[in-house]
This record gives sequence, C-alpha cells and structure tokens, in this order.
Amino acid sequence: MTTQLSESPFLRACRGERPDHTPVWFMRQAGRSLPEYRALREGVAMLDACFTTDMVVEVTMQPVRRYGVDAAIFFSDIVVPLKAIGVDLDIVAGTGPVVAEPIRTRAQLDQLRDLEPDDVAPVIAAVTALTGELGGTPLIGFAGAPFTLASYLIEGRPSRDYRHTKAMMRTDPGLWHDLMERIAAVAGQFLRMQVEAGASAVQLFDSWAGALSLADYRAFAQPHSAAALGAVADLDVPRIHFGVGTGELLGAMGEAGADVVGVDWRVPLDEAVRRVGDRSVQGNLDPTTLFAPPEVVAAEARRVLDEGLAARGHVFNLGHGVLPSIDPDALARLVDVVHAYERP
Amino acid sequence: MTTQLSESPFLRACRGERPDHTPVWFMRQAGRSLPEYRALREGVAMLDACFTTDMVVEVTMQPVRRYGVDAAIFFSDIVVPLKAIGVDLDIVAGTGPVVAEPIRTRAQLDQLRDLEPDDVAPVIAAVTALTGELGGTPLIGFAGAPFTLASYLIEGRPSRDYRHTKAMMRTDPGLWHDLMERIAAVAGQFLRMQVEAGASAVQLFDSWAGALSLADYRAFAQPHSAAALGAVADLDVPRIHFGVGTGELLGAMGEAGADVVGVDWRVPLDEAVRRVGDRSVQGNLDPTTLFAPPEVVAAEARRVLDEGLAARGHVFNLGHGVLPSIDPDALARLVDVVHAYERP
Repeated sequence: MTTQLSESPFLRACRGERPDHTPVWFMRQAGRSLPEYRALREGVAMLDACFTTDMVVEVTMQPVRRYGVDAAIFFSDIVVPLKAIGVDLDIVAGTGPVVAEPIRTRAQLDQLRDLEPDDVAPVIAAVTALTGELGGTPLIGFAGAPFTLASYLIEGRPSRDYRHTKAMMRTDPGLWHDLMERIAAVAGQFLRMQVEAGASAVQLFDSWAGALSLADYRAFAQPHSAAALGAVADLDVPRIHFGVGTGELLGAMGEAGADVVGVDWRVPLDEAVRRVGDRSVQGNLDPTTLFAPPEVVAAEARRVLDEGLAARGHVFNLGHGVLPSIDPDALARLVDVVHAYERP
Repeated sequence: MTTQLSESPFLRACRGERPDHTPVWFMRQAGRSLPEYRALREGVAMLDACFTTDMVVEVTMQPVRRYGVDAAIFFSDIVVPLKAIGVDLDIVAGTGPVVAEPIRTRAQLDQLRDLEPDDVAPVIAAVTALTGELGGTPLIGFAGAPFTLASYLIEGRPSRDYRHTKAMMRTDPGLWHDLMERIAAVAGQFLRMQVEAGASAVQLFDSWAGALSLADYRAFAQPHSAAALGAVADLDVPRIHFGVGTGELLGAMGEAGADVVGVDWRVPLDEAVRRVGDRSVQGNLDPTTLFAPPEVVAAEARRVLDEGLAARGHVFNLGHGVLPSIDPDALARLVDVVHAYERP
C-alpha cells in the first residue's frame, strides 16, 4: 500500500485517527440513483453486470468521479459469491435476490462448496484494475454476512419476518450452524480474494441481523460473522461491520471482530460509541433526509458530524443505502458539507 | 364495569398489579391463522367484514373461545376510521392498505373531516354486543397512531423506507403537523367511541414508528400520539402503546401517555422496564418462535415471563402479530404455558 493510500482520510478514520477532514462515502453510491449508471446498465441483467470486469470498474468509478467521495466500494451484490459457487439464483428487478430452490435440507447444504478464485475471476480482475485506477482513494471490498445470506438462501427471496430462517435456527440448530459455517467460509474466502487483489478495507453487510434479538444474535449469528471477518484478520485491513435496525446488537457486532461499526439512523453516533466501545463508527444520516431542502440536509449532516466527535474515528455515511430516486446533486452537496465541516 | 371485569388479570396487570396468573392475549389472535376465520371470511372483502357487525363479533370471539386468552381485541383494521370518513382506500390481499390518491397536499388534507358516530355505527354496535357477550373478559379497543396512519395516507401503500412521509415531515413541517393533528383527532374520536361503547382498554398501534430516530419521533410523532391517547385520558381505561423496532423510542412512547408499553422481541423485557420507567409492559415473544418445537416455545416463553418479573405489571403477548401460517395449536399450548407459570 502506498503512503498516500494508507494515510488517506478514510483509512485513518477507520484506524481511529482524526484526519484533516471527516471522510465520506455512501452505501450504494454506485447504482440506480446515477443517470450514467442507468445508461450503462440498460439491457444488462444485474448479475451479468456483476461478472463483467469492465462494467464493474466503470460503475465503481462513477460516484468517485462525480462526488469526490473518500472511498470506492466495488460494484457487486452480496449474492455474487453464492451465484459463483453454483447456487441457482437471480436478482429480480423490484424484488431482490430470488433463489430457485430455497435451501432447507442437509442434502442441499452439502451442495455448497468452497469459493475458488476461478469462480470469480472477472470480479477479482475488476478489483485489481480498480486498485490501479483509484490511486490514493481506497477501495472497499465487501461480502454479505452469514445471517443475511442464509436468510436469502432459506427464504428463497426477501422476507419481512424470516420465518423459515428462524424456524431452522430453532428447530434444527445443528443444520443451522453447519449451513452458517459453510456460508461464512465462502464469505471469508471472497473477502480474502478481494484484499489480496488490492482492496484496502472490507465491509461485512449483515443487513438483516436486526431481525434478531441480542440473545439469538449471539447464539446463532455472531460466531459465523466472526469467522467471516476472521478470514482477513491477518491482512492488516480495517473491517467494517454494518446492519440495519441493530441498535441492540452494536456491541456484539463490534465484538465479532469489527474495527468500525456501521450504525443506521436510529441510534445517534454518540450513543453508538457508548455501545461499541473503543472502535470507530460509520454513519448515519437517514437516507430519506436527502429528499429535504439543502439547508435541512446540511443541518442534519452537521448534527451527525457533531455526534461523531464522540468516536475515536468517524467515517461519514448514510444510515442505509442511497435510494434510487435520490437526486445525485443532493449527494454532491452533502459531500461538500462533510468536507467543509470544521471540528469545534 | 363489573367487579369481575375490573379485577380481571389483564386489567390488573395493566394497572401495575400482580394477578394470580400473568394474563396473555395475542396481537392478530383473530385472523388468518384460524381455520374458522378463513371459513367465515371466504368471499368477503376485509373492509366489508370490518363494517359488518355480526362478523366483527364472531371473529372477535373465535380466539377467546379457542384459546381462553385473557382479553379480546375487536376485529378491525387501523384504516377503518379513515375509510369511515371517506378516504378512498382498500385493503389488498398480499399487499396491505392501498390509498387511491396518496395525500400530499393541503387541499387533500382539508378533505379529512372528523369521525362521527354514524360513520362507524356497525363497528360500535359490535363493540357493544361484544361487551355483553364477553362478560368478565375485557375487550381491547384500538386505533392506529398518527405516524403509522400518515405513512399509509402519504405513501399510498405499505413502504420500506417511508420516503414520501419523511420528505413531507422535513420539507413542509407545517403541512405535516396539520395532517398529523387531523389524523390524531380521528384516532382519538374512534378510541373514545369504543370505550364509551364498553371497551375496557385501548391499544394505540404505532406499528411503523420504529422507522424514526428518537429526535424525529419526539419532534414529529410523539405530540400527536399523545393527543390521540389524551382523547380517552378521562375515561379510566388503561392505554397500551405499541410499535415494532422501537427499542430507542420506548421511553418516549411511554411519555406519550401510555400505562402499558408494548415491546417487540428485540429488547428483553427487563431492559424495556429500565427504559419505560414506572409503567407496565406487554410482550414480547418473537412470533416466529411458534414454528419451533413445543419445548423450545415453552422455554422461550418462560424466559419472557422471567424477564417480565422486572415490570410492575406484565401482559404476555407476542412481539408482533400472529403470522397467518402459525398453527393454532401452538398458540393454545403457549396460553397454557403462560397460565401455568409460577413466579419464583
């Protein structure tokens, strides 16, 4: 890693330092909110795009060029490594990931093999190319956390209540833990390949972990998230861990092995700091704030920045992904507000 | 109110007393999980059912007969009073409430009038009839809280992110507060009519308030929930206030004027008690637990009961509504577990 890169505001904040300005990037910064993205994706299925090197590179770069954000996140989807090992799934527009045969038996679990470099060669080629193109701007690699991936595999599609997932968890804990171990191995392998190809940080998305109570999270999810994060523990890159509605879980998510805990908008960052202890935090402007007038967005952003002062390190982000109907100019203005913020 | 009724375990627990057994009822205990309900509803649209006195009475009684729960909740839907004042909406199977013309302007707001007794005469007739039929078993009246009702009116249908709702809140707070005042008046009027017709308690459902941060909840929702609950403050009935994913809001929801705060499964009841102070709590078994084997359900129920000992009064319930695919026998067994529980 070059000095410029390792001293970038994003990596410094992840390490718990205070760079000159608070770094900012946005979950789903690459995607449907950008007209240049919609133009490029026209007629190309989501998963095809994720496995096409040139497209991954271009889409990843688009928000970096447009906004001057402090980090890129490589364009992909959390189901990509599952698709890569042969799970029959697709991303259906307007719905999300749909698995042809939801996985609910040991025989199906036994079909889930390790992820080999050849399975994701075009993806990893994109990471390598991006590392060169980005120069001093860090690239964040990512994977879905075992609970969230398991919920898609078991439900077969996005769910409101995770009934089949939780039923397996409580009815056949042996099968549950074996499945989670398997998924954690694949997620960990995918993270490791990305870092070895040049990613400077990783984020593990446990988007739906907030559906679990703390006791269930600790018993059924945390050990497997820890295994996935542990797969890159020796590689000296910061590990970010994020989920939605995880107010009760923030401490436990940190303990799973995160250097940075991502926080949604429900918990103010100063309170989040009390829950995660000596870790950096990432977040946490409510994404829907971006539909408000600029002066309201700026005031809310400054409140988040003020609350973030309680943290060792603070990476500014939204509390969840950019919504497709958000005006890119609102995000551009938000980057300026964050970069212009002067600590008291 | 008869002595038998006012000394019922449910009302005693709401008042913060310790009846001989912990009372139990289930949100959505009347509904699709019951074969006798599905038979009765066949060919009848949901909103038609809600405005048919005999059907409301019969459906409300079904779970009382089957389970021996400690309270009935009258069968209805939170959009019923909106339909009753003339909002063009329907409940679409598999989707939820759909509003023909989402309300986003002052001209539309000005169309929302007060609720008059004649608008809900068949509904109130059902409450009166139920009060007689139930004898010593309390009937819970209910209404949707202003934020949750506003979210349906503004989005036009169930939403994941409440983007239009939050946009109005932040972009035109004057319009927002006027709309919320209007809805709170209707919700309060509906609650008052139910209590005057014989309901012994009320529950205000702010199902989706958990989408708000505490600061936004206090600024944009709480005063209007307080107004709705305030409409029955002089009627000497316990007021229950419930929402999903409201861990950060529990204290503020109590302060809105609740005697009992409903808690979803994400916050253990002993921790909830620390947040709501000197109030009773209701909850909070994860509804999906009911898909697990009986011995797992019983153990989880006893954990909830143990944690509920920290409260002044505890009304056992699920942490959200009964799922349609839950086996009624599992609920029957759960009632037995709760009633057999002996406090240490």
